[in-house]
Amino acid sequence: MLIYILDMFGTAVFAASGVLLAGRLRMDPFGVVVLASVTAIGGGTIRDMALGATPVFWITDTNYLWVIFVTCLISMIAIRKPKQMPWYFLPVADAIGLAVFVAIGVEKALRFGATPMVAVLMGVMTGCGGGVIRDVLAREIPMVLRTEVYATACILGGIVHTTALMANVDATVATVAGIVTTLTIRLAAIRWHLSLPTFALRS
Amino acid sequence: MLIYILDMFGTAVFAASGVLLAGRLRMDPFGVVVLASVTAIGGGTIRDMALGATPVFWITDTNYLWVIFVTCLISMIAIRKPKQMPWYFLPVADAIGLAVFVAIGVEKALRFGATPMVAVLMGVMTGCGGGVIRDVLAREIPMVLRTEVYATACILGGIVHTTALMANVDATVATVAGIVTTLTIRLAAIRWHLSLPTFALRS
Amino acid sequence: MLIYILDMFGTAVFAASGVLLAGRLRMDPFGVVVLASVTAIGGGTIRDMALGATPVFWITDTNYLWVIFVTCLISMIAIRKPKQMPWYFLPVADAIGLAVFVAIGVEKALRFGATPMVAVLMGVMTGCGGGVIRDVLAREIPMVLRTEVYATACILGGIVHTTALMANVDATVATVAGIVTTLTIRLAAIRWHLSLPTFALRS
Repeated sequence: MLIYILDMFGTAVFAASGVLLAGRLRMDPFGVVVLASVTAIGGGTIRDMALGATPVFWITDTNYLWVIFVTCLISMIAIRKPKQMPWYFLPVADAIGLAVFVAIGVEKALRFGATPMVAVLMGVMTGCGGGVIRDVLAREIPMVLRTEVYATACILGGIVHTTALMANVDATVATVAGIVTTLTIRLAAIRWHLSLPTFALRS
Repeated sequence: MLIYILDMFGTAVFAASGVLLAGRLRMDPFGVVVLASVTAIGGGTIRDMALGATPVFWITDTNYLWVIFVTCLISMIAIRKPKQMPWYFLPVADAIGLAVFVAIGVEKALRFGATPMVAVLMGVMTGCGGGVIRDVLAREIPMVLRTEVYATACILGGIVHTTALMANVDATVATVAGIVTTLTIRLAAIRWHLSLPTFALRS
Repeated sequence: MLIYILDMFGTAVFAASGVLLAGRLRMDPFGVVVLASVTAIGGGTIRDMALGATPVFWITDTNYLWVIFVTCLISMIAIRKPKQMPWYFLPVADAIGLAVFVAIGVEKALRFGATPMVAVLMGVMTGCGGGVIRDVLAREIPMVLRTEVYATACILGGIVHTTALMANVDATVATVAGIVTTLTIRLAAIRWHLSLPTFALRS
């Protein structure tokens, strides 16, 4: 139940990040809704299509779409002046959503009989997929492929979550451990601007 | 039956718009076919994958692929000088295809047990999805996210169609009402260059 | 069995081409893994989703993911100085992977009841799909839509393969014929820089 509320929170936060980008690109209101939607539910949609978990989650539970629509409405009215928010507000909210999305992806993949490695991958896909599609539509090189330990946080959170389950830890404890891992690493990365050494070819 | 003919017409028109863009990008003949195909069947493919309606529609009915191939052949021969067509020819044909695609998407979603809101979304996805993929492949910010009431026309047409069905209107009448709504709004937008106020963030 | 080994070889080669592009874009190690993965398994994933062959192949057989991870590790260590390889090394390896992927796509599509034309298309999608997604993520116009008879080689190989099966040729012979066709055409294109006349619109 708490997971469900956090899931909706993550959906709203991811949608808001789509709205922000749409605003920078001067899209019309329905472009805004489209960009918010792919950001919020794109990753989970690819996960469900790959698992064969169709119809995908937002078809069977329309709360996701309502959360996105309401977020778009509120965002377009409220955040005309994004500088009034403290700078860390959106990254921190995004980190919470990310951590929850990873945990949900891991759990769903295991429920559909995936191996541990695939479960970790599905967690990463659920967390990062929407942002990748958002950036592709906005014609930017996906942020998550380059930024401070973003996918890395998801991978480590997913590994903790999956390993705990394999070690017969209680499911709720394993989920919380995974979420806390992802969240902690991501918050540390935001606070201290951590990043991995990049792999660069001399050309 | 009429719907089926209009569906093929829409497929041909959407394929032609892919050919035009491929021509501007100086692609080779098979690049042309690929871009025409994703434009014509991309939206419906994502819809079917999300609904779990697999194998997707063009696997079970190969007429779609034949229509696309023939369209590519004719287009590459005939439209070397696109300026000889009246300027409104392609937009109007595109509007007809769009209206039919939305209606087909709505109907298919409801047949697979989707709620009304999801049905409208699937209509929009069927109509606009192919164009979005075409623009992403051609490295442009998707036209439908920015242009004169394009997605908006689809949403309103989908709402009319779905609402009519919910009110127990005869299915054929509901379909026609939806198509006419999408088409009228889109044609009006083309004729008078209507557009919604954009949502722009000061950055 | 030989096909399986060649499949893994193709997966490794495609992953390496993703690593190379990631290196040029200065991605962090996990961005590298993501780009390598979509290049290696992206085409087959879309094929399986469209066919309804879910869960998709790399969920049920995790060897693909292991091959990708190991390839990323080795590549990042070994190919810091790509100029030390002979220039034709990667294109030739890529051609072998491409030819095998096309054959696998054709076979899988027919096994799922596709018509011959759809089977050819699925072969092309398996071979070229991953590279298209890689280029879209890296914000380039997909190479396969423009380059020297790349998709063309896949189409002809797929047609030979499918036609042979329709003519009741032994399945193994048909597969080999298809692979040899794709490979020969592609190698010839690399050697003599063959390309089709492009279709260009005066604008």
